[in-house]
Amino acid sequence: MKPSIPKGTRDFGPVEMARRNYIFSTIRQVFALFGYSQIETPAMENLSTLMGKYGEEGDKLLFKILNSGDFLRGVDPAMLADADSVKLISKISEKGLRYDLTVPFARFVVQHRNELQMPFKRFQIQPVWRADRPQKGRYREFYQCDADVVGSDSLINEIELIQLIDEVFARLRIATIIKLNNRKVLSGIAELVGAPEKLIDITVAIDKIDKIGIEKVSEELLERGLSQEAISAIRPILEISGSTEERLAKLEEVLSGSETGLLGVKELREVVTGIESLGMRASVEIDVSLARGLNYYTGTIIEVKARDVAIGSITGGGRYDNLTGVFGMPGLSGVGISFGADRIYDVLNALDLYPADDAFATRVMFVNFGPAEAAASMKMLKALREAGISGEIYPDSAKMKKQMGRADALGIPFVAIVGETEMAQGKMTLKNMHTGEQSLLTPSEAIAAILGHS
Amino acid sequence: MKPSIPKGTRDFGPVEMARRNYIFSTIRQVFALFGYSQIETPAMENLSTLMGKYGEEGDKLLFKILNSGDFLRGVDPAMLADADSVKLISKISEKGLRYDLTVPFARFVVQHRNELQMPFKRFQIQPVWRADRPQKGRYREFYQCDADVVGSDSLINEIELIQLIDEVFARLRIATIIKLNNRKVLSGIAELVGAPEKLIDITVAIDKIDKIGIEKVSEELLERGLSQEAISAIRPILEISGSTEERLAKLEEVLSGSETGLLGVKELREVVTGIESLGMRASVEIDVSLARGLNYYTGTIIEVKARDVAIGSITGGGRYDNLTGVFGMPGLSGVGISFGADRIYDVLNALDLYPADDAFATRVMFVNFGPAEAAASMKMLKALREAGISGEIYPDSAKMKKQMGRADALGIPFVAIVGETEMAQGKMTLKNMHTGEQSLLTPSEAIAAILGHS
Repeated sequence: MKPSIPKGTRDFGPVEMARRNYIFSTIRQVFALFGYSQIETPAMENLSTLMGKYGEEGDKLLFKILNSGDFLRGVDPAMLADADSVKLISKISEKGLRYDLTVPFARFVVQHRNELQMPFKRFQIQPVWRADRPQKGRYREFYQCDADVVGSDSLINEIELIQLIDEVFARLRIATIIKLNNRKVLSGIAELVGAPEKLIDITVAIDKIDKIGIEKVSEELLERGLSQEAISAIRPILEISGSTEERLAKLEEVLSGSETGLLGVKELREVVTGIESLGMRASVEIDVSLARGLNYYTGTIIEVKARDVAIGSITGGGRYDNLTGVFGMPGLSGVGISFGADRIYDVLNALDLYPADDAFATRVMFVNFGPAEAAASMKMLKALREAGISGEIYPDSAKMKKQMGRADALGIPFVAIVGETEMAQGKMTLKNMHTGEQSLLTPSEAIAAILGHS
Repeated sequence: MKPSIPKGTRDFGPVEMARRNYIFSTIRQVFALFGYSQIETPAMENLSTLMGKYGEEGDKLLFKILNSGDFLRGVDPAMLADADSVKLISKISEKGLRYDLTVPFARFVVQHRNELQMPFKRFQIQPVWRADRPQKGRYREFYQCDADVVGSDSLINEIELIQLIDEVFARLRIATIIKLNNRKVLSGIAELVGAPEKLIDITVAIDKIDKIGIEKVSEELLERGLSQEAISAIRPILEISGSTEERLAKLEEVLSGSETGLLGVKELREVVTGIESLGMRASVEIDVSLARGLNYYTGTIIEVKARDVAIGSITGGGRYDNLTGVFGMPGLSGVGISFGADRIYDVLNALDLYPADDAFATRVMFVNFGPAEAAASMKMLKALREAGISGEIYPDSAKMKKQMGRADALGIPFVAIVGETEMAQGKMTLKNMHTGEQSLLTPSEAIAAILGHS
């Protein structure tokens, strides 16, 4: 009986945790730096909160929790005899695991509306669960790191969030391209070609341009019922290139017949001007093929890619105008971003960008030669800890080789040895595991030596 | 349709999160200081891992997750017709939410045995879920903060863990009593009165001594089938008092006929001597009525109470000799402790012991007078953030009163005002919200002023 974990889930050991904590704490610090406050919501939400928010497919991907106790009590026997899983669910399950942080956030805002100061700027870093088929890079449990501001439609929020993204990736030392678009530009395009009702079709097709190229996208648009004429009108937009200013100017020209489209370009321009005047380390690119989460975003759309690793988007976000409407609180505009921790983890691994030093790592291990030496060691260890040095003592007086082997295997940089000689002098022999050097030191000298090396 | 969350679960807003983070980060820092490494396990475990580990009652309190897809497919129609919830569970659910951190830790150790360096010292801070009836102070989702070391039976581990507990509560400024017992002492008592098979009965009764007193405990022991003679033999043990040394001496005397009992006293003495020679801020007390988690602990038993707040134990732990046996890896001794974050939260609230300053809190808000002033403000805000100061700008050029109201409501200590005059000079008017003082400052002067006040 070898124990295992559910497929699509993961254990994180000490090394992975140190790396994940580095990512999370970087993001958390920057969220706070930009004035976002943390909240947490329960892992379980009522199914009435979750169902119908992620489309039909999403409803199926929710993990549902069986009601406690005798969950079949009161269930109509005829319904049981039917053996219809979908119908039975509502009778035997009323809670599900959260699928993302956005719907719980919307629920939170409505539920606590009277306690919140608007605009409300919140961040949230918690796991979510999806009953997706597991595959490489896709898990059934993964963390999301979201920041949103609701209750303000000022574009300053977009500018701040893009600055925030830039700061996070500068700290993580990942070179990025931040792609920007605006839902109103996409609406303008649909309007322009006289097919506003085809907006979804157009954007779904456009979204694939990176993968399949312009010709295939044109074919798909034809299949989706657009006229050849409409496709010709769209084409120059897909071929837009040049500097940000050139792209904006071209868009303005092509969309001159659409009020909505022009508003989209104006917003894009304001955002780009704002961030560039503040100085960006990432490159910023207008990308009209960017259409993520379309049935959701109403203004700015943001997507971030790593320059040096071929991987999907590592952060995304945008503006939505009606987050809380579905919970009975209409007209609340918001904008938010979500960092993909797992992909960022992969990028840092691929580029070997983790800092050498983990602030939390054990810095020193005391060897154990028996009760008297251990007692003396523990006093010295206490002094080291009081100076903020993480350390341990080998709990058993095992063979020296075994004890040193532990320090080696765990990458502990210093070993302290307190034998009879050292005890007599109230000192320790401190061995630097990298250089092999060792010196006889008092506890305060050892503190200085260890801190000097960190 | 007012949205809500499942009963027994909680939302945590910004203020609660700051307080909870203070507790968690204090505990995490001390765990690391003592050489424990963090791990995380999935929220969902296979039911085969969880079932049967917490007793019959525990099995019922597990939250079970409905299999995805058509979960009724393949279920025998006769079984459905039976409508027997308990039998049906194994057919329609194979995963459950973790109930504590101990069983997942045991599973982790066995599953990763070949990658782990023994002794393995791990800490884990994650939520757990129990389908308990919610009541005051008892939730269906709550965090546990555990540290365990497995693969060593040295009492140095106990001494280190008790020091660790002492350090956590010293940092949190909570005065505590650390109560110690040893399962072998309890076994010795049962042996002594000739009723080793009554060990559970004896300890269950003894455990109530604080609540119901010696007389009632004696009555209960009689009801549980102990002879009057046996009860008389136990009585002096229950009445033990005096200093730690006096208590140990008395126990030694009473238990002189039991080898196991004497070993328990010897272990207790070694632990107490060890921690006292290192200096403790908590008071340490031998308490033979301490019997928590008895069907589990095999040696040292630890329980911590707050001195100044009447609340249950805020931390507990002990040694177990066979954590991983149930997963096919026998003979691995370990000792661990678990901090009760929710009760610690209540204690800090009751004693008003939270630090005034939250390192992550927003320190400054820029007022927004319109596009030009906002643009100038955002440049200054950027400089402040580069100096590590968390800040925001009011995103809309709302009425001054409304903007100041936000800073006030959120307790932001400084407001920066950049109007036309300030803009012309590249300065800001910085207002200290506590004193009402305001001064015209350059960004670097403002940084000094804000940092000087934090």
